[in-house]
Amino acid sequence: MDAGTTLLDAARELGVEIESPCGGVGVCGKCKIRIEEGNFQKFGIESKMDNLSPLTEEEKEGLGEEEIDNNYRLACRAAIEGDVLIFVPAESRLGEQVILQTGRKREVSIDPIVKNYYLEVPPATLQDQRDDFSRIRDLLAQKYGLEGDIFLDYSVAAALPVTTRRAGWKVTLSIWNGKEIIKISPGLVGNPWGVAIDIGSTTIAAYLCNLRTGETVAKKSMMNPQIVYGEDILSRISYVMTNEEGLARLSDSIAEGINSLLEALVEEAGLTSPEEIVDLVLVGNTVMHHIMLGIDPRYVGRSPFVPAFKYGADFKARDFGIKINAGSYVHWLPLEAGFVGADNVAVLLAEEPHRQDEKMLIVDIGTNGEIVFGNRDKLFSTSCATGPALEGAQIKFGMRAALGAIERVAIDPKTKDPRIKVIGEENWFDAGERSPASGICGSGIIDVCAEMFKTGIIDKTGRFNRQAGAPRVRRGADEKMEYVLCYAEDTAIGKDITITQGDIRAIQLAKSALYCGAEYLQEKFGVTKPDRIVLVGAFGSYINKESAMVMGMVPDCNLEKVQAVGNAAGDGARLALLSRKKREEAGEVAKKVKFVETASEPDFQIRFAEATAFPHRRHKFQSIRHILKQSAHRSGSTSSG
Amino acid sequence: MDAGTTLLDAARELGVEIESPCGGVGVCGKCKIRIEEGNFQKFGIESKMDNLSPLTEEEKEGLGEEEIDNNYRLACRAAIEGDVLIFVPAESRLGEQVILQTGRKREVSIDPIVKNYYLEVPPATLQDQRDDFSRIRDLLAQKYGLEGDIFLDYSVAAALPVTTRRAGWKVTLSIWNGKEIIKISPGLVGNPWGVAIDIGSTTIAAYLCNLRTGETVAKKSMMNPQIVYGEDILSRISYVMTNEEGLARLSDSIAEGINSLLEALVEEAGLTSPEEIVDLVLVGNTVMHHIMLGIDPRYVGRSPFVPAFKYGADFKARDFGIKINAGSYVHWLPLEAGFVGADNVAVLLAEEPHRQDEKMLIVDIGTNGEIVFGNRDKLFSTSCATGPALEGAQIKFGMRAALGAIERVAIDPKTKDPRIKVIGEENWFDAGERSPASGICGSGIIDVCAEMFKTGIIDKTGRFNRQAGAPRVRRGADEKMEYVLCYAEDTAIGKDITITQGDIRAIQLAKSALYCGAEYLQEKFGVTKPDRIVLVGAFGSYINKESAMVMGMVPDCNLEKVQAVGNAAGDGARLALLSRKKREEAGEVAKKVKFVETASEPDFQIRFAEATAFPHRRHKFQSIRHILKQSAHRSGSTSSG
Repeated sequence: MDAGTTLLDAARELGVEIESPCGGVGVCGKCKIRIEEGNFQKFGIESKMDNLSPLTEEEKEGLGEEEIDNNYRLACRAAIEGDVLIFVPAESRLGEQVILQTGRKREVSIDPIVKNYYLEVPPATLQDQRDDFSRIRDLLAQKYGLEGDIFLDYSVAAALPVTTRRAGWKVTLSIWNGKEIIKISPGLVGNPWGVAIDIGSTTIAAYLCNLRTGETVAKKSMMNPQIVYGEDILSRISYVMTNEEGLARLSDSIAEGINSLLEALVEEAGLTSPEEIVDLVLVGNTVMHHIMLGIDPRYVGRSPFVPAFKYGADFKARDFGIKINAGSYVHWLPLEAGFVGADNVAVLLAEEPHRQDEKMLIVDIGTNGEIVFGNRDKLFSTSCATGPALEGAQIKFGMRAALGAIERVAIDPKTKDPRIKVIGEENWFDAGERSPASGICGSGIIDVCAEMFKTGIIDKTGRFNRQAGAPRVRRGADEKMEYVLCYAEDTAIGKDITITQGDIRAIQLAKSALYCGAEYLQEKFGVTKPDRIVLVGAFGSYINKESAMVMGMVPDCNLEKVQAVGNAAGDGARLALLSRKKREEAGEVAKKVKFVETASEPDFQIRFAEATAFPHRRHKFQSIRHILKQSAHRSGSTSSG
Repeated sequence: MDAGTTLLDAARELGVEIESPCGGVGVCGKCKIRIEEGNFQKFGIESKMDNLSPLTEEEKEGLGEEEIDNNYRLACRAAIEGDVLIFVPAESRLGEQVILQTGRKREVSIDPIVKNYYLEVPPATLQDQRDDFSRIRDLLAQKYGLEGDIFLDYSVAAALPVTTRRAGWKVTLSIWNGKEIIKISPGLVGNPWGVAIDIGSTTIAAYLCNLRTGETVAKKSMMNPQIVYGEDILSRISYVMTNEEGLARLSDSIAEGINSLLEALVEEAGLTSPEEIVDLVLVGNTVMHHIMLGIDPRYVGRSPFVPAFKYGADFKARDFGIKINAGSYVHWLPLEAGFVGADNVAVLLAEEPHRQDEKMLIVDIGTNGEIVFGNRDKLFSTSCATGPALEGAQIKFGMRAALGAIERVAIDPKTKDPRIKVIGEENWFDAGERSPASGICGSGIIDVCAEMFKTGIIDKTGRFNRQAGAPRVRRGADEKMEYVLCYAEDTAIGKDITITQGDIRAIQLAKSALYCGAEYLQEKFGVTKPDRIVLVGAFGSYINKESAMVMGMVPDCNLEKVQAVGNAAGDGARLALLSRKKREEAGEVAKKVKFVETASEPDFQIRFAEATAFPHRRHKFQSIRHILKQSAHRSGSTSSG
């Protein structure tokens, strides 16, 4: 290495990328490194053995006294004058693996599509009359090696002359995909901010991330404001079809919803305005995708169920009234099919079945269930009309996963009395204990069905078993059988919370749809069981995997190989926000997955009817027999994990 | 060639491109060709000698009886079954040289950036669930060889599902640059429409062109509506600087102006709406460019006079309120420098000095004069502050080139009486004849100055010569000398129209600025005279080249090598509209031209003062001496050509 080379350049030549958001002009203080050997500055002696240039003013400002004492230097200021050994602390390393911590930990190499570049531009003179943009472009090439066609968003062009001059020609440029300048900010802006949003039919979840560090600094969610126009997707399609302004109203409401989430995120993170957000990744099902983009969704809901387009797409946020930085894009991940949307692609990005040898079954449980089966060789997907029961809708005392919802249930095999866990409360409530329960959400319903079956309160057909001797089973006001989960005095609503025969039937239909879908996909692949199961869903808490197995919602599998994760779609969206590679991977995996139209299979009706039963006698279910056996032994204890 | 190949495909294989806007499905009738040998269809005999497939129903519909009798077939329907000799009529050939007829004829190969593609798309089925876009993209590749990344403008994505299905999957796509679908129209739309606009400080001129044939089908012009905010560029810059909403007001007014021109063009051409326009090319000076794009122009008018950006740019029309097709772009040609704008690049595109060996001097006369000198080796440009006199402003009876403006003047060398030509009137008016004259425009002022000098009414310094014996020279009300061009009773304004000493001075300053600019550029190039001169300007009529020479507005040159053309900027804009190659050429030539800041040359003031004189004694002006001599011989005849 030549003497006089800065440590920053030297490290780069050796292939070690050190953080330098200011581009190496000594103003950001991010390129701190520690000298292990060859530095004697700290003794204040000009020694012959001193192998580095003297400490600069910028370093005295940018480093604390303690750091200077500990041999820290700024890599962009310290020049090599002999042999040195340096240590680059993790926070100064660029492009490191950063761990995304949510439901599960996921690793990603930070390489966002929008990056910030700080420049100190030489002002124009009569001798150098290059236009503002050319002097920026030339410097980008020189300092950052950014070559090729670079152009300006019109909003940046408009801001260019005034912003550069007011900032004394010290500006930060946010550049999209190495080719379009989408924002110009005065001075040094080290952190570009991005947001990932999962637009569910019911809930919108948003994550604000630092695009430099990968850190998620704020999370917010809200009810999808479209819900006033229809609970589920089909009713929203029908609203579009029956109201002239329907599509515009739905599109506007989602844009407003997103804008208010952005405001909330920015406030939580202490940023000044959503205009600081330079990138936005969106995922959601196909109908949410279409409506948000102003595309009539009616044909998605009608045979042959095809979307307008599937490829991952970048559109200017301003064209949809999304109020982030004026020049920024929104990126929609690709779709798979009419009923398997960008949210499922995000799930695949997070779970990566296409990178595994193990054959994975991924079940995303919602009003519409999406199932993927396969591994690196082949991937198949389908969608199942589960209905809203698994989300707590169309259940007598069903409710969304909100405060007061019963999210877990365990039934004592002897007394047949339930214990419940309620959202917002840390401890379980025993039978007869006063609780703030006001209804039951999806994960609770799945639990209670599984527990009633395990304890014999219902039989394998789902019918109440009068021989079970369960005091809480009774005839309801409508003369139909029901199980009392909480008596009126133990609830927040002053009414008995019951599980009716109808509720059980609704759950049976839903789980049968999922089960059949999985079975067809396995057959397409050419196997009879998965190596691994992942249960995905934006439930209040994670679904209890044992209950799901007991119900026969998924095929038999070693219980240790079954995982329930939270909102994997949100995780996948964040991965796509933080990594260009992941965005490319999304396109590839979306193409790889083959959509299977299971409902048109000739034996679908028969299989579906069969699969509504609880599966304790079906020899296929090794794992369930095991669970049931264990459960019989653990009499009196709670059986949910 | 294989038997069964259509003539369309066969011709394509042989490198002959035949028109087929419908993509060869027999519906547009544009691929008519004539069979010279090998066709016996017309006799209605199935002969062994018949070397073409039988006449189809589409051909019976698409061709007239006469055409069928004359051996015409549709190339897309007629298949080869043996040897044939065909003739492709000019109107069926694609990519032919088309002549653009304006001031001068210019040839261009039609290859617009937006082209139309007609498709008959197979509808989706449960067996083929490709999304709408994929089935279009696949067909584009298959039928038109359009490969690579193609994507959708969001407005097209939004229209896609409904438009395709309502049109029975027969649609025309307008594709920008082979990669972005910017419009989808039901059925076959053979002609894409484009507009070229030259935004002058004073006048906006617009041309509506058929992008398939290259034909200009309508022209319109209007006063630049910004004029209420300031007559010239500097006063508009000052309006921006002194009014908070100034920039927005100026930008809006130009957008409104453009929109009203578009409406007028569309009406004239009989189109239904400006939304049929799929492409728009804009040229104009740097300040017009900046204001239209919402860029603060103040730094363009202030040393060191640099623009925000110079490269040729594509922006979505909608971002500026320009109401053409929602997905379409506006393309601004590149700028050269702060005071040499996209209009000058357009002039270069039209005049092509960069393709000549001859050293050309191009003088674009306006409030700001732009001069280019050079040839294929080197090109230099500069801008000269001519002031508005050459456009008729700041002249006592000056007016714009509009109805009633005196546009030509000839003075009898004996009687010193003028003859005038007035805009809107075909014939010249003699002195003392009643005319609708209400003032004098730029070309008229140049004429009258040259004629007064030629006839000795003024001397070489521009002063009135009392010895000339001109009865129309008198002292005005202000006691200053003036020449009466029309007496009150011969005008439409009831006032004497005079040319004052002040008017002559203003013209002298303007022409001196142009002359000096040209001289400096010649010196930069290393020569003392041009091989050729082109006078450009949006005058009412073309400037009289002899008058310009006599005045000393341009350097000496063989008069046969001097041309006055009209709005070459408008021509250049149209060329860029019709040809991708010309658009690329614009970028290259804009980079090639080196801007010279003449006003900062040390001897500028001295040269400028010298050049204000009329040049009859300066030995450099061979051509002028010749003109003056001729003029003396032709006593009594009009001397303007």
